[in-house]
Amino acid sequence: MILTVTLNTALDVTYTVDALVPHASHRVGEVSERPGGKGLNVARVLGALGHDTVVTGFAGGATGDVLRGLLAPLPPRDALVPVAGNTRRTLAITDRSTGDTTQLNEPGPQVSAAEWVALLRTYEELITAADAVALCGSLPPGVHVGAYAELVRIARAASVPVLLDTSGEPLRRGIAARPDLVKPNADELAQLTGFREPLRAARDARRRGAHAVIASLGPEGVLADTPEGTWRAAPPAPVRGNPTGAGDSAVAGLLSALAEGLDWPQRLARAVALSTATVLAPVAGEFDATAYAELLPRVSVKSVGAAA
Amino acid sequence: MILTVTLNTALDVTYTVDALVPHASHRVGEVSERPGGKGLNVARVLGALGHDTVVTGFAGGATGDVLRGLLAPLPPRDALVPVAGNTRRTLAITDRSTGDTTQLNEPGPQVSAAEWVALLRTYEELITAADAVALCGSLPPGVHVGAYAELVRIARAASVPVLLDTSGEPLRRGIAARPDLVKPNADELAQLTGFREPLRAARDARRRGAHAVIASLGPEGVLADTPEGTWRAAPPAPVRGNPTGAGDSAVAGLLSALAEGLDWPQRLARAVALSTATVLAPVAGEFDATAYAELLPRVSVKSVGAAA
Repeated sequence: MILTVTLNTALDVTYTVDALVPHASHRVGEVSERPGGKGLNVARVLGALGHDTVVTGFAGGATGDVLRGLLAPLPPRDALVPVAGNTRRTLAITDRSTGDTTQLNEPGPQVSAAEWVALLRTYEELITAADAVALCGSLPPGVHVGAYAELVRIARAASVPVLLDTSGEPLRRGIAARPDLVKPNADELAQLTGFREPLRAARDARRRGAHAVIASLGPEGVLADTPEGTWRAAPPAPVRGNPTGAGDSAVAGLLSALAEGLDWPQRLARAVALSTATVLAPVAGEFDATAYAELLPRVSVKSVGAAA
Repeated sequence: MILTVTLNTALDVTYTVDALVPHASHRVGEVSERPGGKGLNVARVLGALGHDTVVTGFAGGATGDVLRGLLAPLPPRDALVPVAGNTRRTLAITDRSTGDTTQLNEPGPQVSAAEWVALLRTYEELITAADAVALCGSLPPGVHVGAYAELVRIARAASVPVLLDTSGEPLRRGIAARPDLVKPNADELAQLTGFREPLRAARDARRRGAHAVIASLGPEGVLADTPEGTWRAAPPAPVRGNPTGAGDSAVAGLLSALAEGLDWPQRLARAVALSTATVLAPVAGEFDATAYAELLPRVSVKSVGAAA
């Protein structure tokens, strides 16, 4: 079983309008809602790949109920911990003609100390049955900034491989707890290390505690710096589309390959093929299964250095 | 008891952002939610004025549940009819610095024939105990365009004074069923009659079936054309503020004065004082009770013609 943790789950709402005009009134054409937050996105992709997947994190209020209702028919199993506050919504307003999107993100619910303890108990129970765990996204208000570090330590004590995908201070603290993998993008890595050059920054992140760093480089693929070697993996050709969720699909690719005992080049090929197939999908955050199957053998994975 | 009918209820959501920029990403500072739809706004004002008030209309889905939860602690009694569809949200995005607001309105839920019949039964039961009834706002999908005409006829058959506040074809059809009052604004009246001059348009609307026409003229107050006479009522001085809900407060003023057996000049004074006190209130759609008490004796009501 693969476990994903989303402390700041979201109900992702999409509005379609003719064109968003500030200070005007708009009729919303279509309204769609789906469970969101990075770890839930990762779990949805893992479920689609056939992996037994469990999601935990927080969900509460009317929005949390809607989120859990939408999650119920999907493959990932729901082990979300209830909170008194209301799960946040994210709103994407898409202009019909151009596809341009305006994003509005609500703040998360205030999480109490007792709710955090309940999450820790659930996590400690689930981790014993997990082949791998992903810790994903931002922290809701009230959760201490070292929360991911605490979850990394528990995973390591249980000898379960742990991937951390967050940013800012939670990433800085989490890395110091020595996670197996981190998957920052170039901006997150630069913010953490002060270096813009990806290999230099990845090396620095490893010195800070990460065993392996998979830096996502957008359309150019990923750079992986690991104890087993350093690789660049890239799609066979650049693609155009909607990059929403591409990073989450890359996490799902890494995690699924790790859980199956595949080596780094295979893990990276899967991450790049899945994220590229996500950019190509007509629905934001979904992946195109046919494109994934076609891309997987065609991802270029090149060693760019021996184990450091 | 005063009854208000809101067929297309809404959960009014307000987001505060620094400034809305199309195609950018925004953190939402504050999120507020309240029960909305014109008839619910009217009922809230009536409740604040101390009137025993009942609301009916449709509510459904997760949004309907939230709306009913927010309504529960307020004075108006909830006689909303459940529907399978999801009550719509309206989203107001307010720029923190300027107070400018961008409005996004979801479509209402699809209402089935059986749900419409359930509403009719509830309405027929409630109308027997009502001193007055207001029929307010747009129609959700699935409700026939003559719905308000049907509700007007039932009220008239029960000898309950009925006020209709809607627009477009539902107003045109509703007026033909001979409601006691209609309260269009200048645009709605022009759309209905083809005349921009308020008195000429009001006379035309009366010829179409309305017993009395109260045309709201924005900051200039109202023009009333009735079987008892024609009046103009205006606030003592123009005011600046947020006009959201001012029309609903005017309806509450007219209806409460009607239910108390007051004459036209007193009804109009109440309508103008309440709508002006709503423009002056710091929270959109609320009214400033102190301003209302101060304004009420100072509204100018002038006869501009004998009974026509």
